[in-house]
Amino acid sequence: MNEVHVKNTGLRGVTVADTKISYIDGEKGVLLYRGYRIEELAEKSSFPEVAWLLLHDRLPGKEEIYVFAKQLRDAGRFPEVVPNCLKKLPKQALPMDVLQMSIPLLAISDPQLSDDTREGNLQKAVLLIARIPALVAAWQRIRNGLDPLPPDDSLSHAGNFLWQLQGRRPDPELARDLDICLILHADHTFNASTFACREVVSTRAHMYAGVAAGVGALSGSLHGGANERVMRMLAEVESEKDIPGWVTRQLDQKKRIMGMGHAVYKAYDPRARILKNMSRRLGERFGETRWYELSEKVERAALSEFQKRGRNALHTNVDFWSASVYHMLGIPADLMTGVFAVSRIAGWCAHIIEEKFADAQEKPALYRPAAEYVGNYCGKMGCVYEPVSERKHGVSS
Amino acid sequence: MNEVHVKNTGLRGVTVADTKISYIDGEKGVLLYRGYRIEELAEKSSFPEVAWLLLHDRLPGKEEIYVFAKQLRDAGRFPEVVPNCLKKLPKQALPMDVLQMSIPLLAISDPQLSDDTREGNLQKAVLLIARIPALVAAWQRIRNGLDPLPPDDSLSHAGNFLWQLQGRRPDPELARDLDICLILHADHTFNASTFACREVVSTRAHMYAGVAAGVGALSGSLHGGANERVMRMLAEVESEKDIPGWVTRQLDQKKRIMGMGHAVYKAYDPRARILKNMSRRLGERFGETRWYELSEKVERAALSEFQKRGRNALHTNVDFWSASVYHMLGIPADLMTGVFAVSRIAGWCAHIIEEKFADAQEKPALYRPAAEYVGNYCGKMGCVYEPVSERKHGVSS
Repeated sequence: MNEVHVKNTGLRGVTVADTKISYIDGEKGVLLYRGYRIEELAEKSSFPEVAWLLLHDRLPGKEEIYVFAKQLRDAGRFPEVVPNCLKKLPKQALPMDVLQMSIPLLAISDPQLSDDTREGNLQKAVLLIARIPALVAAWQRIRNGLDPLPPDDSLSHAGNFLWQLQGRRPDPELARDLDICLILHADHTFNASTFACREVVSTRAHMYAGVAAGVGALSGSLHGGANERVMRMLAEVESEKDIPGWVTRQLDQKKRIMGMGHAVYKAYDPRARILKNMSRRLGERFGETRWYELSEKVERAALSEFQKRGRNALHTNVDFWSASVYHMLGIPADLMTGVFAVSRIAGWCAHIIEEKFADAQEKPALYRPAAEYVGNYCGKMGCVYEPVSERKHGVSS
Repeated sequence: MNEVHVKNTGLRGVTVADTKISYIDGEKGVLLYRGYRIEELAEKSSFPEVAWLLLHDRLPGKEEIYVFAKQLRDAGRFPEVVPNCLKKLPKQALPMDVLQMSIPLLAISDPQLSDDTREGNLQKAVLLIARIPALVAAWQRIRNGLDPLPPDDSLSHAGNFLWQLQGRRPDPELARDLDICLILHADHTFNASTFACREVVSTRAHMYAGVAAGVGALSGSLHGGANERVMRMLAEVESEKDIPGWVTRQLDQKKRIMGMGHAVYKAYDPRARILKNMSRRLGERFGETRWYELSEKVERAALSEFQKRGRNALHTNVDFWSASVYHMLGIPADLMTGVFAVSRIAGWCAHIIEEKFADAQEKPALYRPAAEYVGNYCGKMGCVYEPVSERKHGVSS
C-alpha cells in the first residue's frame, strides 16, 4: 500500500482517477467538455445537447437529440407523491434542503430503481435532468401558496424552467440566456459536489443517493452557495460610496470578497467572461445597468487590491458574474444555488456513470482515504475506562 | 501545488487530514475511539456514553451523561411534518432511501438550523442521534400500515429503538446486546460514508446536508449495505449440503463472499470477534443455533479457501457477523443497514464537527481532488463543433 501524505490540502493536485468528461487548464483559463471548448458550446449548442454530450462522449445526431429532448419533456411530469410531500413542508424551508430531500423521493418513485446497468443509469439521468428544474420551480410556487405548473412542451428546457418558476412565458432571448448559463455550469471536473457524488456511488449506491450528496455539497457557501452570497453582497454594498475602500476594509479584516478566487483557475474563468458580457447586455436591455456597474466596480477594486497584496492568482469566478445575471433573469437570490443544480445535474450524472462503469482495469476502488491519528493515546491497550463515579468532571482525560 | 498520482486506488493509504476521533491498527486488529479500545467500551460502556465520548473527546461525568440521555429522549419526539411526509410514500420504498430523504426533513424542521457554531452543531448531533432510530422504526411501522410509536422514557436508547420498531418492550438483555452492536459500529475513521459527510461539510454546508450524504454512501453494497447482503447470502446457502464446495465455486466464478475482506483490516476485525460470540450466545439462548452454525461454516470454508489461494489478508469483517445477530434480534434484513446508521450517526456527527472546527492552522480546505483527462482532445482550441446536419450519427467523434 502506498503511503502518501497530503494533509489539509483538500486533495488539491491529487489525481484520484481518469476522466473523459471535462478538462480544465487553470493557467490558461481553458475549459473543455468532452473535448469541446466552453466558448464554442455556449455560442452554438443548447443545454440538452450539452447534457447529451456529457453523458455520451460525442455530440448527438439529429434523431438522438430529438428523442432526448422529448424524453426530458416527458420526464418533467413528476409523480404526485412529490408535490404531495412538498406541500407538507413549512414555507420557510431552505430551497436546497427541499431539493436534497426531493432526490431520494425521486428514487422512491422510480419504478426502474433497481436497474443499475449503464442503460438504466442513463434513464435515471434523464429523469434527474428533467426533474430538478421542475422541483426548484415547484418549491417556489408551493412556498408562495400556488400549485406547481405543468410543463409547456412548446418551450425549450431553459424556457420551460422559467415558465414553471415564474408563471409567464419567457421572452425567447431570455430563455436562451438562461440556456447559456446552464451550459456554462454543467460540468467542472472533480469539484466538491461531483466528487461527493462519485464518493457515494463508489460504494455501489444508486445514482439518486449520489446526487443527493452532490446537492448537499453544492449548498455550501464555498461551493454552489456562493452565487447567492455574491447577490447578497451586492445588495449590501449598493449604498457604499467608496467601493475600493470597502474592499480594502474587507480584506484588512480578513473577510472574503464573495465570488473571487477558485481552487483551479489561476487565470480569468472563461465562464465568468461570458457571464460578464451577458450581465452587461441584460442590464442594457432592461435599462437597469446598476447591477452590472456595481459588480464591475467591486471586481475592479478587488482585482487591483489583490495585485497590491501580491495575490495575482486571485480572479473573478463564475459565481461572481452569475449573481447579477440570475437576478436580472428574475431568479430570487435563495434559488440561485438551485439553478446551479439545474445545470450541474448533467455533469453529476455523467460522472456517476463514469465512476460506475469505468473499464474494470481502471475502475477506482471505493474512496476511503486515511487520516493521521493525533488524539488521546495511552498505549496499545488503550486508555483505562474509569467507572463514572471515579471520573473528574469537566477535565479531559 | 503538489502533484500526486494515486489513480484508481480509492485513496487507500492517502492521509488527507488529522483526526482525534478514532484509530485503527489494521495489522494488529486494534480499534480505538478517542483512545479507548473497542473491547473495553463494548464491555463497560453504553451507546449514549460512547456517542458523548466521540463528540467530546473524553468520557462524560455523571451529570453530563444524565443530561445527554435526557436530551436524547426529548429529541426522539420528531415534529409532525416527518410522519406526515413518510405516510405519503409508497410502501415498497427502500428504507435507506426513506432515511436519506428524512435527513433534510430534519434540517427543515430544526428551528436552530442556521446556528453553525460548535454548540449549535452539538445540538444538531443530539437531534440526529435521537431521531435516526426513531425514523428507521417509524418507517417499519408506517409501511406495515401502523402508526409510529412514541418513545418509552423508561427504556435505554437501544431498548427504546427495539420497542419503537417491534411494538413490544424488549428483554433488557437483548436491548443490551443491541446497545453493544451500536457501540461497535459507532465510528471507524475515514470510511466512505464518513468521508462523504466530511467532503460535503468542507464546503460549509450544514450538518444535515453532510449526514444525508453519509446515509447515501452507507447504502452501497460495498459499505453498510453489506450486512443485508450477508443475511441474504446466508438464507441462500441454507439449503447447501456442501458449503466448502459452494465457496470454491463462488470464488472460481470471481464472485464475492459477502462480509469477507476490508479496506483496512489485515487481521481479524475486533468488532467481528465480539459479534461472533454474541451470535453464538443468542443462538443458544433462543435454541436456534442454525444461523451461527451456518455463518461459522461459511467463515471457516472461506478463510481456508482464501489461504489456499494465497490471500491471507482476507478476513471476516463486521458485516459478516452482524447479519446473524441482527436477525436474531428481530431486525428484518432490509433494515439492517438502517441499524448501522442508527449507530454510525455518532461518528458522522463527531467527524463533521471535527471538519468544521479543526484549528484554523490544521483546517483542511474543501476537498477537491484532481483527475487525469484521458478523453477527446483536438488541440488547444477544442474540437470543431459541427452543425447537427453534418454529424455522422452513431459514430464517435
